[in-house]
Amino acid sequence: MTVSVDGERMWRELETLASFSDAPAPAVTRIVFDEMDLRARAYIKALCAEASLLVHEDAVGNTFARWLGRDPKLPPVATGSHCDAIPNAGRFDGTVGVLGGLEAIRALQRAGCQPRRSIDLVLFTSEEPTRFGIGCLGSRLLAAALDPSVGDTLTSNGESLNKIRASTGFSGALNDVPLQTGAYAAFVELHIEQGPILERLKLDIGVVTAIAAPASLRIFIEGEGGHAGAVLMPDRHDAFLAAAEIALAVEAAARSTGSSDTVATCGVCELFPGAINSVPSRARLEIDVRDIDPARRDSVLAKIRRASDDVASRRGVTVRSEPINADPPALCAQPIIDAIVSACDARQLRYLRMISRAYHDSLFMSRIAPAGMIFIPCRGGVSHRPDEYASPDAIAHGTAVLADTLASLAG
Amino acid sequence: MTVSVDGERMWRELETLASFSDAPAPAVTRIVFDEMDLRARAYIKALCAEASLLVHEDAVGNTFARWLGRDPKLPPVATGSHCDAIPNAGRFDGTVGVLGGLEAIRALQRAGCQPRRSIDLVLFTSEEPTRFGIGCLGSRLLAAALDPSVGDTLTSNGESLNKIRASTGFSGALNDVPLQTGAYAAFVELHIEQGPILERLKLDIGVVTAIAAPASLRIFIEGEGGHAGAVLMPDRHDAFLAAAEIALAVEAAARSTGSSDTVATCGVCELFPGAINSVPSRARLEIDVRDIDPARRDSVLAKIRRASDDVASRRGVTVRSEPINADPPALCAQPIIDAIVSACDARQLRYLRMISRAYHDSLFMSRIAPAGMIFIPCRGGVSHRPDEYASPDAIAHGTAVLADTLASLAG
Repeated sequence: MTVSVDGERMWRELETLASFSDAPAPAVTRIVFDEMDLRARAYIKALCAEASLLVHEDAVGNTFARWLGRDPKLPPVATGSHCDAIPNAGRFDGTVGVLGGLEAIRALQRAGCQPRRSIDLVLFTSEEPTRFGIGCLGSRLLAAALDPSVGDTLTSNGESLNKIRASTGFSGALNDVPLQTGAYAAFVELHIEQGPILERLKLDIGVVTAIAAPASLRIFIEGEGGHAGAVLMPDRHDAFLAAAEIALAVEAAARSTGSSDTVATCGVCELFPGAINSVPSRARLEIDVRDIDPARRDSVLAKIRRASDDVASRRGVTVRSEPINADPPALCAQPIIDAIVSACDARQLRYLRMISRAYHDSLFMSRIAPAGMIFIPCRGGVSHRPDEYASPDAIAHGTAVLADTLASLAG
Repeated sequence: MTVSVDGERMWRELETLASFSDAPAPAVTRIVFDEMDLRARAYIKALCAEASLLVHEDAVGNTFARWLGRDPKLPPVATGSHCDAIPNAGRFDGTVGVLGGLEAIRALQRAGCQPRRSIDLVLFTSEEPTRFGIGCLGSRLLAAALDPSVGDTLTSNGESLNKIRASTGFSGALNDVPLQTGAYAAFVELHIEQGPILERLKLDIGVVTAIAAPASLRIFIEGEGGHAGAVLMPDRHDAFLAAAEIALAVEAAARSTGSSDTVATCGVCELFPGAINSVPSRARLEIDVRDIDPARRDSVLAKIRRASDDVASRRGVTVRSEPINADPPALCAQPIIDAIVSACDARQLRYLRMISRAYHDSLFMSRIAPAGMIFIPCRGGVSHRPDEYASPDAIAHGTAVLADTLASLAG
């Protein structure tokens, strides 16, 4: 049985998918439940129907497209990723795993493969935290790692998740979203590396063995505002200057571990009132900390809290921090790692066992099924930017390895 | 002749004016040419008509309400201020000078005063820089301190000043806005101090002798974005961290002069893309620097530039700074200072000769007419905040001194 991937078709499909964007090309902006997201979903569902997959959606918009196996009662094998994109991002993050998963299934169909287990392609809702402030919304709910009450508490511009999803046609109960443990025999996600290692080492495939433990928090700073011309420097309690010091402390805390596996980022800073002639009275920071070692990550969080307290007392402002999430890391399942390695060996592709520092829906799928990830190189390690790029060859290699892995896991 | 001010009426008028706001009370947000600004203007014009003043408006919306004197051919005396308010500001900044000017005229009318020169109440357009990025838009144009071509170059959300003013009914040529030097015999502005000195010293009136020299600039930082999980700390060129260091350098530069007259503020910081899981690739800062000594102020600007260059080379980002304005300070006219002092003495009000660190339309009116300012205390020196407050007594005292001063200057 020869399984061969149609790389040209995938490339065209990636191009079409990239056209559903609120930002001009090459940038992609695709916010969950906005018009472009809905158009992208419709396009993917049409491709799935064309491949004779059976499509259904859950209450939060996670979409499942099933290729029935010879024994449809066995727990299926699944693959998939997301198609939402943060503001001004690129076209490969997530989408390679969705269209790659679909092409892997089509390649197996073309090769005449008839797997024992069904194979599901899963399109996860809102892997990106852009709209509701928390990443992996769909897979968290699938894994029961998030309480269904978030339907009321998570909001976007004052509207609840429940209201927004209902207005776009997803109106069922969030209670029905979680899957049983064992619902899937295995889950494998294809994804661009979003880091520079594979390209630097001239390798084709990253075999992910673990996914780093992400944590994120919001910091609210309340100082004292006033007229920029009239409040003397010693009388000031400037919320932005406090925020600036905290942002620099976040960087210092990440660097202080001495490990290149620790990263910390302050990607959001909002000031109030935000006028050139007004001393900022309030500031809000959003901070992301990741490490493969959860204890070391937590030590960074503790350093950020201590630095915030110090800034607060020194500048006479109040600083309140609110955790958004602090997830444990995930270990990939050995049988899946072995299947990926075998596929690489059979196709003579060069691979590296590696850790994912970015987080993915696999982090949550690993809670309810044995999980694994296949990485492909991306240019310069760049992601979340318009110049994000993975070559057609890299994508075809990853898709072929995914197809072989799915065939092996589905039996 | 006894001139007495109707403080209760003024207080009610200030309350009504405060109700034209985009923010809930006690906050006031009133952006030039927005609906609330137009409603505030309509209210003030109605009050002027009620007082039999002759109202006309220029092409940028500066509004002139004239009480004709016995000799209407002589250059009039003028008073006035602004009624726009930055986001989440208070109800006294500017408005006290507008409604106080009107009440001063009404008090003179009630007292049977028949001044030789006409007295103009001027409502200046956009003293605040909120919408078009530059303060004192109306008075700058009146004083020919700004080229009329700004009608095309100044924008708000991509729309030009010319387009926006035309859509609100101000459609004449900006070339017709500048007044001749000598068009007014004198200009006097009543204003809250926006600083703590008068309240601390338990004084009624500040007699302004000079207005500090303001400068402002924008700083654009271009770094390198990327995925917050994947770009290692040593590989980063984070635009926000560069911005944070520059903001702290702005503070340090202001403090380094050793003079409490130097203030510098970074009130705006915008990040791109502004997502929690993305390293900021671009940042924009807006900075305001003021001093009564223009040379010392310029030394602060130079320090900010040097610090920016240092941050740029250390962090591998590009930093570009763009001046918005750098105005010379203004000296108040001695005859006006003398008239204000005489009025204080006659009414047994305690006064202090002082400098204005905030800038005002008087800064530009001083270029075309002898100018002066009357300050009244405000609670805690607070301004540009919802809790900005001046007492009815303080406002009445200031208005009475203004009425006497106008009577004296108008002859």
